[in-house]
Amino acid sequence: MKIARFEVDGEISYGVVDAAQEGTGVELVELTGDPLVAGYDTTGRRFRFEDVRLLAPVIPRSKVVCVGKNYADHVAEMSGVTGMGAEAPTEPLLFLKPNTSVIGPGDTIVRPSISERVEYEGELALVIGALAKDVSEQEALSYVFGFTCANDVTARDIQIADGQWTRGKGFDTFCPLGPVIETDPDLSDARLVTRVNGEVRQDGRTSQLIHSLSKIVAHASQAFTLLPGDVILTGTPAGVGTLDAGDVVEVEIEGIGILRNTVR
Amino acid sequence: MKIARFEVDGEISYGVVDAAQEGTGVELVELTGDPLVAGYDTTGRRFRFEDVRLLAPVIPRSKVVCVGKNYADHVAEMSGVTGMGAEAPTEPLLFLKPNTSVIGPGDTIVRPSISERVEYEGELALVIGALAKDVSEQEALSYVFGFTCANDVTARDIQIADGQWTRGKGFDTFCPLGPVIETDPDLSDARLVTRVNGEVRQDGRTSQLIHSLSKIVAHASQAFTLLPGDVILTGTPAGVGTLDAGDVVEVEIEGIGILRNTVR
Repeated sequence: MKIARFEVDGEISYGVVDAAQEGTGVELVELTGDPLVAGYDTTGRRFRFEDVRLLAPVIPRSKVVCVGKNYADHVAEMSGVTGMGAEAPTEPLLFLKPNTSVIGPGDTIVRPSISERVEYEGELALVIGALAKDVSEQEALSYVFGFTCANDVTARDIQIADGQWTRGKGFDTFCPLGPVIETDPDLSDARLVTRVNGEVRQDGRTSQLIHSLSKIVAHASQAFTLLPGDVILTGTPAGVGTLDAGDVVEVEIEGIGILRNTVR
Repeated sequence: MKIARFEVDGEISYGVVDAAQEGTGVELVELTGDPLVAGYDTTGRRFRFEDVRLLAPVIPRSKVVCVGKNYADHVAEMSGVTGMGAEAPTEPLLFLKPNTSVIGPGDTIVRPSISERVEYEGELALVIGALAKDVSEQEALSYVFGFTCANDVTARDIQIADGQWTRGKGFDTFCPLGPVIETDPDLSDARLVTRVNGEVRQDGRTSQLIHSLSKIVAHASQAFTLLPGDVILTGTPAGVGTLDAGDVVEVEIEGIGILRNTVR
C-alpha cells in the first residue's frame, strides 16, 4: 500500500494511492488523519493524482537518523576525501539531520551561498511506526511503518571542513522525502537509481547494503528512543556528484516511486 | 524573569518564579500556557516551589544544536584525545542532540550498557523564541527567549570510536536542561560551575566563550531555520570527567540556577 500526504485547495490530507483502473487515472483515497497515529478510516473523498500537490509523506517530530558509509562502492569512492577514512564501519555510523531540512517531492533544493559544492546522495529511507527502544534485529522491522525515497543532500565542502557532518548535511531543504510511503515493498534486491537531468549517476541495489535495515533500526534504537514518524536514511551507493542551479535530480527506488526535485 | 515548567497532581503547567517574600517561600505563578507561544497570562493559581516537580523547561520541537570546543581550556584538555584536534575551530563547530535525549532537573541520567565512560559537560544553553533564519550577529540575541543550564552528557568512548559525535552524545537522558529559563540574566561574565557529589570539577565563566552567543545563533541560523523552542548548547569549559552510578551532578550558572541530576 502506498500512502501520500498532499495538499489540495490549501488543505493538507493523507491518502492511500489507488492504482489506475480501466478508464480512470491514479486516485488518492482520502484518510481522516495521519495513518501513523489515526489508522486507515477514509473520508469518502477521492482525488485524482494530477489534481493534488504531493508533500513530504512524513514530517519527523523528533529526528532524521542517517547512516554513513553503508555501500562498499561508496566507501571506496570517498576513501580519498579528507577525513572520510577508507574502511566501512563495523557498526552503522549514525548522524542526524534536523526536521527543518525536510522538503517534499517537487520542492526546490536551495544551495546555500556559503557552499561551493552541493551534492546529491540517493537513499532508501524508512519511517518508524511505533516507539522503539533497544529492539532486537529480529523484531526491528515490525517497528517500521514503511519506506520512501530520500536525498541526503550534502554541502561536501562544509562537511569536510567541519569534520562533524551535521552542518554540511543539515541545511534547510537538504532532506527531500517522497513521493509516497510504501508500507510493504520487496526490498530484498530493489534497484535504487539517482538521475540528474535524466542521466543515471547512481545505480545501486538494496541487496548491497553493508548493514541491513534490521541491523540499522536495532542499532539506532540502542542509542535513541525512536518515535513514530522518525525517519532513518540508510546510506548511499557510489556515484555521488554535484548539483548546479537548474538541475533536476531524481531518486527512484523500485517498488516505491520517483522523488524529483529541482535545484536553485 | 524565571520561567519554570512543572508538574503538580499529574498536570503539567508553566509558571513564573516569584521570589521569596517576607513570611513566604518561593512561589510559582501559573501561566495559561507555554509563554513561548502563549504569552504571560496567568491562571490566578499559585504553587509553592517545594510542592511541584520541576520538568525540563522546554522540549525542543525540532532540535538541540550544540557547539563543540568553545572554551580554550577545554580544547587544550581534549587535544590529546584521538580525533579531537588541538585547535579551536575558527567558526562554531555544530552538532545535534535529538529531543529524545532531553530530561529535566531531578531526572536520572542513565549510563548505557554499551559505554564504559560517560562524562558530564556543564554548559550554558539558550532557548530560541522566534523563527530565525540567516540572522545577523547584531540582531541574533533578539531571537533568544532565555537561558538555562544544560549538561551535554557524553559517552566519550563511543564519541571517539564513531568519530561522528551524534551517537555518543545522543543517548536518551543525555541532555538534562533546567531548572528554569531566565529571560534576562547578566551573562557578560557569569560563573559556570559543575560539581560531582558536591566537589567542583568545572569552574568557568561565560566571558571565556571563544565564539559569542550572538555569533553562535547567527552561525547556526545560517545552516538551519531555528524554531521557537529549539535549544542551543554553547560549549563546556575545562574539567570534564566521568560519572558513575549513584553520582549527583550539578551544573550551576550564576543568575540562572542549579541543574541537579543523579546517575544510574
